[in-house]
Amino acid sequence: MFILPKNVTIIEVGPRDGLQNEKNHVDETDKLQFIHSLQAAGIREMELTSFVSPKWVPQMADAKAIVEKSDRIGRQFVLAPNAKGAELALESNADSIAVFVGVSNTFNQKNINRTTEESMDALEPVIAKLKHDGIFVRACISTAFYCPYEGKIELKDVLNLCSRFVSMGVDELSVADTIGMANPVESYELFFQLKKEFPEILITAHFHDTRKMAMANIFAALQAGIDRFDTSAGGLGGCPFAPGATGNVATEDVVNMLDSLGIETGIDVDKICAAVETIAQHVSHPIETGMYRLYKNKIH
Amino acid sequence: MFILPKNVTIIEVGPRDGLQNEKNHVDETDKLQFIHSLQAAGIREMELTSFVSPKWVPQMADAKAIVEKSDRIGRQFVLAPNAKGAELALESNADSIAVFVGVSNTFNQKNINRTTEESMDALEPVIAKLKHDGIFVRACISTAFYCPYEGKIELKDVLNLCSRFVSMGVDELSVADTIGMANPVESYELFFQLKKEFPEILITAHFHDTRKMAMANIFAALQAGIDRFDTSAGGLGGCPFAPGATGNVATEDVVNMLDSLGIETGIDVDKICAAVETIAQHVSHPIETGMYRLYKNKIH
Repeated sequence: MFILPKNVTIIEVGPRDGLQNEKNHVDETDKLQFIHSLQAAGIREMELTSFVSPKWVPQMADAKAIVEKSDRIGRQFVLAPNAKGAELALESNADSIAVFVGVSNTFNQKNINRTTEESMDALEPVIAKLKHDGIFVRACISTAFYCPYEGKIELKDVLNLCSRFVSMGVDELSVADTIGMANPVESYELFFQLKKEFPEILITAHFHDTRKMAMANIFAALQAGIDRFDTSAGGLGGCPFAPGATGNVATEDVVNMLDSLGIETGIDVDKICAAVETIAQHVSHPIETGMYRLYKNKIH
Repeated sequence: MFILPKNVTIIEVGPRDGLQNEKNHVDETDKLQFIHSLQAAGIREMELTSFVSPKWVPQMADAKAIVEKSDRIGRQFVLAPNAKGAELALESNADSIAVFVGVSNTFNQKNINRTTEESMDALEPVIAKLKHDGIFVRACISTAFYCPYEGKIELKDVLNLCSRFVSMGVDELSVADTIGMANPVESYELFFQLKKEFPEILITAHFHDTRKMAMANIFAALQAGIDRFDTSAGGLGGCPFAPGATGNVATEDVVNMLDSLGIETGIDVDKICAAVETIAQHVSHPIETGMYRLYKNKIH
């Protein structure tokens, strides 16, 4: 009945998307321990940090040190919100850079004080420069299903935005249900279309678990042929500009489901839980993901 | 792509399966308020209580009063673990009775001190008597996917057990992933087979969310044509004999996903959350389901 991918790539977003809105300050050393523990668990693609203004996101003020001191294993993304961020990222010798935009105008304006169109216009020369320098570019597309202000987002608007990114030469589209409101049929429909329209581009699905549909959405996206998922160890994360957005779907729960389905990830669930343990004491809220709870209670 | 049922029946199990292992004593009045709030939210099938020995499950010592004082709306199940329980249930004028057995011998023995075979032999005359009296009989089949002691359960063993129940004349098979270990492909496969083998019987899927796969399993079971799900308001529940089994999948999260998919349930999510609010103060742990968290924080 089901034709699912044999291998899946997990893009770990905990150190960046997970920690960026964490209330407690997390020390550089603790972040590096988290990053290296995640690598030890088998993570080969990771969002490391963000070259955003420390005025807006103080948690990411150590971006340069994090990039420089992290072991170079696989692909490590740094987020660059604008030309200045991209410049700083290049100076730190990053070889993979993520840019982002919201499909919803209102969301984009509240998030980065620009319309979606203005964001795209500003990103065009940035991406051209990065591609000229041989940098891997990941485009993160938020509010691709629902916006907390505008409601349901039209599928064609997502496709149009993605198409523009593809024509700019990006290598990957990471498409997000930012407020965790998509259902599995919507997940299937959008990702099926994206795979069809952009067969040459890496397509990644990014789900938040606000309404507990993330795992069902991942199963639906797998049915649509998606083999790349953004996940966050410990389910860390959430967006302050997206009311009600709780954490990202948890790496350990997604990898466990994929393991159970016989889909290879190269990642060890117990070691992800060990990585979560290194960061759990530094964050402001309890970590209650399925697999981490079992790990803490020594249930296998 | 997806052919999903247009209507789904939710069987609310919070008052019985949810509360039976609750550490705090919950007063009869508070249980009745919970039950009536659930009915006000649109619940029309519910496990009310259990005629089990108060020595084993003190929380259910008020079974008789709960049955007698609950408003009779739709179908209300009372659980009867044995002939004595069934007799007490009949005396209380219950018109729908649930019996249960584990597919796994070891689990069944640890749970009720009998082999699966011994349980079935003991249930045969009980069910015969109930059917003779015109009672609706629901057979709850636990450890239908995995057992904490025996590991993976063979699909054919589940089918054989179900077949025996069907030949005894039961009206419904509620088939459970007791320890929350099934994946969506396993969910699809078993429920597809059950629908195929027993087209005349109501087939209900019962998932626990231990490893966060319950919602994906429900989506897979919908694809297999299942239109009845056991869920528990607030995700209450868990089984003391099943190490690592956390709560049942939450009614409010399941109904929200079904709403989003355009599948009718007749149930109001906000009112389910209001029912959860009535019980939340009486249980020993915080309630952190997706929709209840949004409800508490007034996010819609």
